[in-house]
Amino acid sequence: MKKNREVTNRFLAAGDKIVREVLEHQNWNAELVMATAEWCEKNAPLCENAQVELFTCSETELAQASGLKTPNQAMVVVLTPDNTADFQPLDTLALYLDGIQDPGNLGTILRIADWFGIPQVFRSPDTVDLYNPKVIQATMGSFLRVKSPEISLSDLKKNHPQWTTYGALLEGMDVFQIEVKAPSLLVIGNEGRGISIRNLTLVDCPISILRHANGGAESLNAAVATGIICAAFRRPT
Amino acid sequence: MKKNREVTNRFLAAGDKIVREVLEHQNWNAELVMATAEWCEKNAPLCENAQVELFTCSETELAQASGLKTPNQAMVVVLTPDNTADFQPLDTLALYLDGIQDPGNLGTILRIADWFGIPQVFRSPDTVDLYNPKVIQATMGSFLRVKSPEISLSDLKKNHPQWTTYGALLEGMDVFQIEVKAPSLLVIGNEGRGISIRNLTLVDCPISILRHANGGAESLNAAVATGIICAAFRRPT
Repeated sequence: MKKNREVTNRFLAAGDKIVREVLEHQNWNAELVMATAEWCEKNAPLCENAQVELFTCSETELAQASGLKTPNQAMVVVLTPDNTADFQPLDTLALYLDGIQDPGNLGTILRIADWFGIPQVFRSPDTVDLYNPKVIQATMGSFLRVKSPEISLSDLKKNHPQWTTYGALLEGMDVFQIEVKAPSLLVIGNEGRGISIRNLTLVDCPISILRHANGGAESLNAAVATGIICAAFRRPT
Repeated sequence: MKKNREVTNRFLAAGDKIVREVLEHQNWNAELVMATAEWCEKNAPLCENAQVELFTCSETELAQASGLKTPNQAMVVVLTPDNTADFQPLDTLALYLDGIQDPGNLGTILRIADWFGIPQVFRSPDTVDLYNPKVIQATMGSFLRVKSPEISLSDLKKNHPQWTTYGALLEGMDVFQIEVKAPSLLVIGNEGRGISIRNLTLVDCPISILRHANGGAESLNAAVATGIICAAFRRPT
């Protein structure tokens, strides 16, 4: 599937709201829309405006084409945009995902970044493909606003030597007690094994979400941990 | 499926680690284990100790029986424990889930509660069933430690009139700027519609995770929002 997306240089986005957002967004090249008769009727002017071809089909056909279980009224084929890393001085905070495997986690993390005004979520080469339909769906439209280029952490740090690199670990400084130095890069590791040994050496400051004295869980979900750390970094001081 | 679980008064837990945790945990009544030959050989003493019947089967049979996509080496049939609400004065913090529908979200929220030492996560009658296999899997074992009884918010408040009820809303006081009054109950609403109108009237203090000025997302995932608020409530002051 990823190979197909790379060869054709196109990806799929499904769901009424996401499709409408893509069509309204001038920076995205929508090519064709497949949708139920009802959706087509309601959104014909929007499609005409965006100059996309419109194909009417059934919900069953849509489910088959999208590969998603949730029924959708519409899906759109989009030209994959240029997604190379932007090495301009950017913002006070960026994320680096080191081997995130679950599409739901990646999508949810892009949504978190979009909430906290974090414009770039860099991905290691072994992180799940950005244009996986489950990722796109879990972003709830945030893939339209947050950039997510693929790059190694060492290359990223070479280009941003001034960034302080924070790593989310099970043992580290309490994220609510550190003084965050901006610009900062927050590294989130793989769901099972955490940050890879190679990238651990590139972390300047290991940070941690403290487990309560009565807590029993071994870890937090990767997206939940990302949300907590972003909220801690962005909170008013 | 839920009906079956209620009639038989039993539920399924799948996965090597979870099955071993159930068997080691004396409070849980494991009835029988189905597992691959390799798993059976390795864990025979544990099964004998827990006095459960052990059936060898293939990974395909396990996948079919569990209804889960991820391959598992073992699954266990467990007697559903008594799960009524405990009205003893409990702790400084409890959660109330008002209509959470996604099994992954419920499981992740139980894992969050387990991390932050929150012993009770109450569920509204229209929240997803606790013993749904996808919920159990997403808890990563936390269902063994966190209680999750079903109860209406009005009944819960009648029994705990001294609890301050916080509601996670899109408009409310910044969660990092309030002074939390313990004991507190945190209400998390449904993924799409938020807290129901009926329960909104029972909220004492509406709280919110502030969106960054440059943020574009309309909301955060329910489990991520729960994690951020729990972290804010539990952080050192």
